[in-house]
Amino acid sequence: MSGFTIAISALIAACAYLSTIRMIPRFKDMFIKAGLYGKDLCKREQPQIPESFGVLIGCAFLVAMFLFIPIPFTFEEAALLDVKTGAKPATFPHEEFAEMIAALLSICCMILLGFADDVLDLRWRHKLLLPTMGTLPLLMVYYVNFNITTVIMPKFARPLLGYSLDIGIFYYIYMGMLAVFCTNAINILAGINGLEVGQSIVISASVLCFNIIELALGHQVDCHKFSIYLMLPFLAVSLALWKYNKYPSQVFVGDTYCYFAGMTFAVVGILGHFSKTLLLFFMPQILNFLYSVPQLFHFVPCPRHRLPKYDASTDLLHISTTEFHPEKLNKLGLLMVLVLKKLKLISWQQQSDGRVITNNFTLINLVLVVFGPVHEKVVTQFLMGLQVICTLCAMVIRYPLASYFYDT
Amino acid sequence: MSGFTIAISALIAACAYLSTIRMIPRFKDMFIKAGLYGKDLCKREQPQIPESFGVLIGCAFLVAMFLFIPIPFTFEEAALLDVKTGAKPATFPHEEFAEMIAALLSICCMILLGFADDVLDLRWRHKLLLPTMGTLPLLMVYYVNFNITTVIMPKFARPLLGYSLDIGIFYYIYMGMLAVFCTNAINILAGINGLEVGQSIVISASVLCFNIIELALGHQVDCHKFSIYLMLPFLAVSLALWKYNKYPSQVFVGDTYCYFAGMTFAVVGILGHFSKTLLLFFMPQILNFLYSVPQLFHFVPCPRHRLPKYDASTDLLHISTTEFHPEKLNKLGLLMVLVLKKLKLISWQQQSDGRVITNNFTLINLVLVVFGPVHEKVVTQFLMGLQVICTLCAMVIRYPLASYFYDT
Repeated sequence: MSGFTIAISALIAACAYLSTIRMIPRFKDMFIKAGLYGKDLCKREQPQIPESFGVLIGCAFLVAMFLFIPIPFTFEEAALLDVKTGAKPATFPHEEFAEMIAALLSICCMILLGFADDVLDLRWRHKLLLPTMGTLPLLMVYYVNFNITTVIMPKFARPLLGYSLDIGIFYYIYMGMLAVFCTNAINILAGINGLEVGQSIVISASVLCFNIIELALGHQVDCHKFSIYLMLPFLAVSLALWKYNKYPSQVFVGDTYCYFAGMTFAVVGILGHFSKTLLLFFMPQILNFLYSVPQLFHFVPCPRHRLPKYDASTDLLHISTTEFHPEKLNKLGLLMVLVLKKLKLISWQQQSDGRVITNNFTLINLVLVVFGPVHEKVVTQFLMGLQVICTLCAMVIRYPLASYFYDT
Repeated sequence: MSGFTIAISALIAACAYLSTIRMIPRFKDMFIKAGLYGKDLCKREQPQIPESFGVLIGCAFLVAMFLFIPIPFTFEEAALLDVKTGAKPATFPHEEFAEMIAALLSICCMILLGFADDVLDLRWRHKLLLPTMGTLPLLMVYYVNFNITTVIMPKFARPLLGYSLDIGIFYYIYMGMLAVFCTNAINILAGINGLEVGQSIVISASVLCFNIIELALGHQVDCHKFSIYLMLPFLAVSLALWKYNKYPSQVFVGDTYCYFAGMTFAVVGILGHFSKTLLLFFMPQILNFLYSVPQLFHFVPCPRHRLPKYDASTDLLHISTTEFHPEKLNKLGLLMVLVLKKLKLISWQQQSDGRVITNNFTLINLVLVVFGPVHEKVVTQFLMGLQVICTLCAMVIRYPLASYFYDT
């Protein structure tokens, strides 16, 4: 039965892919006319590229999901139907149905908020507030359906804390923060052609692989089916977007896509009960976040844009830089930059007047620090490769290593 | 118990009102900076007014609903809780929970699509397609939870068609069309300061009165409670918007608000099982639609804007006009205009060259045909008054008259 519904989900995803491929070029002019476009700064001609195509992709995803949802429930219902009376069974999976709808509500909210952000250019505090708001339906359905806030402790912590610990409200705070993290993590590892979509494709493919392995092992079948139903159409519309967003970009994705992708991942992680594994797939984003901390929290001056600099003569990307007087940083800031310098994770140019020029603290710039100026396309490929390697590491951690920390 | 949850809903609605009142002025500049503004053509100075505030109102409504939803379910759950074990009851109202979430999903989709329409200026076919898409979650939950497609026949039709008739798929088509009608009906009775919000306030107040009467009579308690939970915060945020949108408008509402309001009404009508009564409250919109038919379906030439003409010297509104050669209309079109002329529902100026100049076929212009040029504020007040009268008629039809057609 579940193989059949997954096949239908794949079929609908394929249709979503084909129609999105057709739709994107037709909407280009409409976005430009509406003033939704930006210059591609890393090109010789700096062409005007229509922006915020995430909203179109998000809508395509929602329509695909709306068309799909009746399927698993109709078939499960049919399988359970009372043969004699034809009455509806008492066991109709209302909980799962509510979960699916709440998941879509959270995602739809996030698309709306992302698009509002693209159009209205909301402030920073909104970027943290809005995903929290978007998670509310999700937390609500978690509260109603499960309300399990008990964490199984790793083996080494059990003598101290016991086998498990009920962390109550903190579990909800953790889930809320997970959503905020996922939406913003993709948004800050962005800025060169295809990177937002590329990383999302790798992550969703990783999640799909993980779901299929777990299904094959017979673990928590319902949770992983739920995740597959969401990930298949997500991967499909993302692949369609990739066709136009990869180097050289014909369309930009906007914050809308980052929010949409992040929330979709958060939803499957939370309602699929594999949020820790999900975070393993987000390793490059976590590294980028940690590396960005000195600038994000203003220990080190942070320019408005931290994109690499484009050299039109060679068509290569160079690091973009920030400068500061080390003695003007506070103690924590100084410690951070000195550690990064020691580890050779930042460039360091001491000027005669005491100023120091370093690269901006993003993973994209780090790639350029390590490998020197390279082509934009190569940076995206490199970061996608890193994402794939992290997935492989995650699988190793999840399967062979996890048995050292948890009972399996 | 239900009195208590309604009180909490009212409290949350009051908070939503107060915070929306504070938020609206703060967002004005942000909307203007984003290019979301329009000229108010019916003012001497033609000021630039920020547009699409429906999106802000819609978000405020969603947040209020998200905060409210756990309440009824927590309390109903507590009331049912097994005293000895503290276990969750098997009777947790998952069906109603799924209904509420699906309702919000439909509304959220509609806000997203409305905002996309305001920003991207979508084509006419999208305006019919999009509400249909937005209704999908709603129809799905109806299919899963009820799937009742049987219509009770009015008494006079029973000898012919029997007591009831299962119209199957046509019931879903009816519900889909109801949503399309509600969203567009408010959108075409619009264009002067405060009218969209004013009519929505009257309709939602009417629905609330109807719900309270039915609750008092003990009819279908769950359905009417459901409707009240949605209508209270809707009325609250609409009243907040009214404060800034009434004559002279400081903000415009955009298609977003019309779609949002229309879908909210469709949702309570469909899931509250009173779609026929709801249509009675929509009488002015139905009249406006019927009156507009000759122009909407291009039997008579239809200019892009059918707003009344503003006379700056007197500060009054005059009818806007269209012109045609009666002999160039097709037969159906000619019949329509001759009937309207006979009933004195249109102005009629025969020119020497055979052309005829009439008013544009909208309720707003009809008011001006009947009462002559009046002030913009008066037109809105008049149409809101008409809406109130229609509500009173609806109540008379619903209560004393319905017993002639149906068993009560």
